[in-house]
Amino acid sequence: MPKTVLTSGAFDLIHYGHIRLLEEAKSHGGPDARLVVIIARDETVRRLKGKPPVFPEDQRRALLEALKVVDEALLGYEDLDMATVIEAVKPDIIAVGHDQEDIERMAREAIEKKGLPIEVVKIGRFGKSDLNSSSKIKRKIVEDLRGAF
Amino acid sequence: MPKTVLTSGAFDLIHYGHIRLLEEAKSHGGPDARLVVIIARDETVRRLKGKPPVFPEDQRRALLEALKVVDEALLGYEDLDMATVIEAVKPDIIAVGHDQEDIERMAREAIEKKGLPIEVVKIGRFGKSDLNSSSKIKRKIVEDLRGAF
Repeated sequence: MPKTVLTSGAFDLIHYGHIRLLEEAKSHGGPDARLVVIIARDETVRRLKGKPPVFPEDQRRALLEALKVVDEALLGYEDLDMATVIEAVKPDIIAVGHDQEDIERMAREAIEKKGLPIEVVKIGRFGKSDLNSSSKIKRKIVEDLRGAF
Repeated sequence: MPKTVLTSGAFDLIHYGHIRLLEEAKSHGGPDARLVVIIARDETVRRLKGKPPVFPEDQRRALLEALKVVDEALLGYEDLDMATVIEAVKPDIIAVGHDQEDIERMAREAIEKKGLPIEVVKIGRFGKSDLNSSSKIKRKIVEDLRGAF
């Protein structure tokens, strides 16, 4: 049976680094894997990052689902309840980014508590010098625009 | 035979408005249409907009090809030669945005000169108040970041 891989994020300013991370996540489930992505709610982004996302949650979700690599994109839960997400998606694998320590911890706790056969894998960052985070992208845009205001 | 729809752009900061425009462009070719997108070269963006794109052309091309709605994404020609593009892609329909007057004019000239049976369609902008252009997005990012530097 095809494996379901679950991953999550804010996905506010989409760039090619996201595609590679999503492809890496999906690859852990083998060639016929299904990739489900949980999109962080606006309120969650605001709470965790101290500022709202550039794009509202509905647009972020729709854009993710418009990607070939993504089979399904779902909005998250405001209280970030990992047990609820696992119950809804029934993943075989949960892929977490290197900066998602909290999500990794919550996933491992939920898995252990219920004794579920779910594998947790870490997915990497590519090319240290690349534009591989929204913060770097925003900084570059601001640098490009300096003097224009 | 499935129709080929050709459209083009810089596609620097991808947002959901792009997806809707691409879907609208493809819809002009019917349910089994094929959508080919020409991605403006870095040098072309620099010349036309007076500043380089945030993302290099290879990343912009790869991201577009990662979209479900896009069948093929190709890098443009530095001299923006529409006749060469038409010869390479052999489109049935060319979809141009409301801000692509130059491309529309070049397309119509090339079509007329060679007497080709290619239809030119205009595709719209959605939701005046939405974030529907890269300039608006950049402005919002800068506004969000004000005080953070």
